Amino acid sequence: MKIYRYPTKDSWKDLVKRPVLEQKEISALITEIFTEVKKNGDKALIEFNHKFDKADTQSISVTREEIENAEKQVSDELKKAVQQAKENISKFHASQKQEIQKIETMKGVVCWRENRAVERVGIYIPGGTAPLFSTVLMLAVPANLAGCKEIILCSPPDKNGNINPAILYAANLCGVSEIFKTGGAQAVAAMTFGTESIPAVNKIFGPGNQFVVAAKEYAQRYGVAIDMPAGPSEVLVIADEQAVPEFCAADLLSQAEHGSDSQVVFITTDLKVFTETISAVEQQIRDLPRNELAAQALENSSFVLVNALEEALEFSNLYAPEHLILAIADFEKYISLIENAGSVFLGNYSCESAGDYASGTNHTLPTNGYAKNYSGVSLDSFVKKITFQHLSKEGLQNLGKTIELMAEAEGLFAHKNAVSIRLEKN
Amino acid sequence: MKIYRYPTKDSWKDLVKRPVLEQKEISALITEIFTEVKKNGDKALIEFNHKFDKADTQSISVTREEIENAEKQVSDELKKAVQQAKENISKFHASQKQEIQKIETMKGVVCWRENRAVERVGIYIPGGTAPLFSTVLMLAVPANLAGCKEIILCSPPDKNGNINPAILYAANLCGVSEIFKTGGAQAVAAMTFGTESIPAVNKIFGPGNQFVVAAKEYAQRYGVAIDMPAGPSEVLVIADEQAVPEFCAADLLSQAEHGSDSQVVFITTDLKVFTETISAVEQQIRDLPRNELAAQALENSSFVLVNALEEALEFSNLYAPEHLILAIADFEKYISLIENAGSVFLGNYSCESAGDYASGTNHTLPTNGYAKNYSGVSLDSFVKKITFQHLSKEGLQNLGKTIELMAEAEGLFAHKNAVSIRLEKN
Repeated sequence: MKIYRYPTKDSWKDLVKRPVLEQKEISALITEIFTEVKKNGDKALIEFNHKFDKADTQSISVTREEIENAEKQVSDELKKAVQQAKENISKFHASQKQEIQKIETMKGVVCWRENRAVERVGIYIPGGTAPLFSTVLMLAVPANLAGCKEIILCSPPDKNGNINPAILYAANLCGVSEIFKTGGAQAVAAMTFGTESIPAVNKIFGPGNQFVVAAKEYAQRYGVAIDMPAGPSEVLVIADEQAVPEFCAADLLSQAEHGSDSQVVFITTDLKVFTETISAVEQQIRDLPRNELAAQALENSSFVLVNALEEALEFSNLYAPEHLILAIADFEKYISLIENAGSVFLGNYSCESAGDYASGTNHTLPTNGYAKNYSGVSLDSFVKKITFQHLSKEGLQNLGKTIELMAEAEGLFAHKNAVSIRLEKN
Repeated sequence: MKIYRYPTKDSWKDLVKRPVLEQKEISALITEIFTEVKKNGDKALIEFNHKFDKADTQSISVTREEIENAEKQVSDELKKAVQQAKENISKFHASQKQEIQKIETMKGVVCWRENRAVERVGIYIPGGTAPLFSTVLMLAVPANLAGCKEIILCSPPDKNGNINPAILYAANLCGVSEIFKTGGAQAVAAMTFGTESIPAVNKIFGPGNQFVVAAKEYAQRYGVAIDMPAGPSEVLVIADEQAVPEFCAADLLSQAEHGSDSQVVFITTDLKVFTETISAVEQQIRDLPRNELAAQALENSSFVLVNALEEALEFSNLYAPEHLILAIADFEKYISLIENAGSVFLGNYSCESAGDYASGTNHTLPTNGYAKNYSGVSLDSFVKKITFQHLSKEGLQNLGKTIELMAEAEGLFAHKNAVSIRLEKN
């Protein structure tokens, strides 16, 4: 832990710096994998499953039978929880739909926007230790609400050639069209080019390791869009004197357990809360199954004591955290001071886990300072907003002169002529 | 011109292909320019002005005096036109503001989104033959409406070290904070890193040549966001028997005059309109000042005769044009069939020039097929949408079990504990 007591503003610039991530030389490997998948399709994916995931897969498509079996393996209790989460996520994302609003900017000139779903979207769900079925909900629910025609999901198989049952259950529940057993850069390549089984998609969503991140970056060269640039997960907690140190510690640790590169920042105005939160972290970490990862993450974490909450908010805006928790009494007073954050949790009972799983907000959020210029995933991420306009004859008569003058001043006479020829015809 | 009469659907895949752009080897040059600007700041920019734009600039900042002089050089007529365009663009983009809508997903669990402006944005306006002051309006007006704190603009100086007066006038009118004389990749580098004069920005907008496009791509490595990927401008016109061939031809040419790589597609169900539009294009092109560029663009253009309007729309969705004109009587009937397009112009009097300049919609739109997965610039492009949530004690009691079960199933016990510790405290 790095402890800072009343750091001067001059020093903040260094305090908000993220550790520079090792830029591993993986681009040659990514290019190779993309070439191979483009050339050999499903066959390449089956070989990569063997090579990278030690899995023998005859086919990469998950069958209806596998999904039905998976459903039997998920407990009723967990099913109910997933259904509740789905309901809340649906409710919040459905509220993001916008009515069409036609605006008459001048008499006879009417402009509006209409949403159209991105036709085919791909969701990547990592394998490994934690089966992230919650991310299936966060991506498939809004994709479905948006009306995407095809929602496909790729996830690496385990050694027995299976995908975790909870992932299959959630995918099926949330309207995923097809599920495929392929992971890493090869899954991203497959969704980019398409294979015999996997359709090429227009946009790729989802988290992943450094290979997946690099592959998503690379895929953009081929016209595919991605959800957002990626980085390690982060939380910044701001606490005042009424904050509960045990709660703050639990929130900090829930971020720290994600991985050794997780970023954790704690800022308070209260010396007692400061020292007690540090103690609570040290105590709670002992009982965590993932405490090694958490301990590594905490090494890079910052605990900052400041004079005023305004100062804490200013620091937070400079840091631009993915998750921001305001464990303060008067949080409403401070909302307007928040400039840069992915998602904000207000008060003592809004723990980050709530948004991670089930309150309704999306957990796919900008990290690594990207909260300064990116939004998290929302319904908007799955649609294009197309502008429409209709000019009546009268409308063009009203606006025509303006267009002609501007086009001429830009030296674009064909642009001018498209108006003149219509006005002359009257 | 490429003429296709009733092409079979099998052949469409080839017809909608954009010409593959030569991937020139410019990345080494871009890296060099970024390094130089990072190291030497303003001094490097002044040298690049000399080297690339043959301009001697003592300072890269445009002074208040220069802006005032520019205002005198713009005719009152043009000023009025620009003001009218600004008014319409403001009206349409202001309508895109969304009210905060708090959603109680469960009793005691309240979620909502709030917009926050991207703090510092940079607008790039190319120099060259056409002074694109209309693009200043399209980017500065929504930036200003969104509440961006700093809106800076970079544009290359002419040989006398000046920026076109209409650009300066429009920038000043639309609330641009500061204007700088620098162009090309070096301008993008300056907005990425900041120099003594130019502040580093969070997001870069605007069109440019291949160096600017490559530099914007490159800038993203340093955490800067960009408006969207770029490609040559395009229009697709769909016409029925009541369409006016002279109008269609004028619209096609207004796209073609942009540059030799512009994409122009005409589709009709009517043989008379087909042949007459082709004749009208050949006739109208003669009188255009930029007819050499237009003629080059037309070489790659397609004129397609089809059996039904539904087929035309299906073709258009596959092509995903930046601009789509429906020069058809019953356009309302076909709106719901449009899946992929940047901006749509309805009827015989909605020429593309209207949206290019002054109707109110934005002219910064996805090209090169990106209309399948990107939207054009809007107010949304200048804000981040931050999610907020508040759980009362009761709210967490209602949702807690769901979160605990899901966290445990994902093997994330610290996430579970953040809930349990709060519920136990009750």
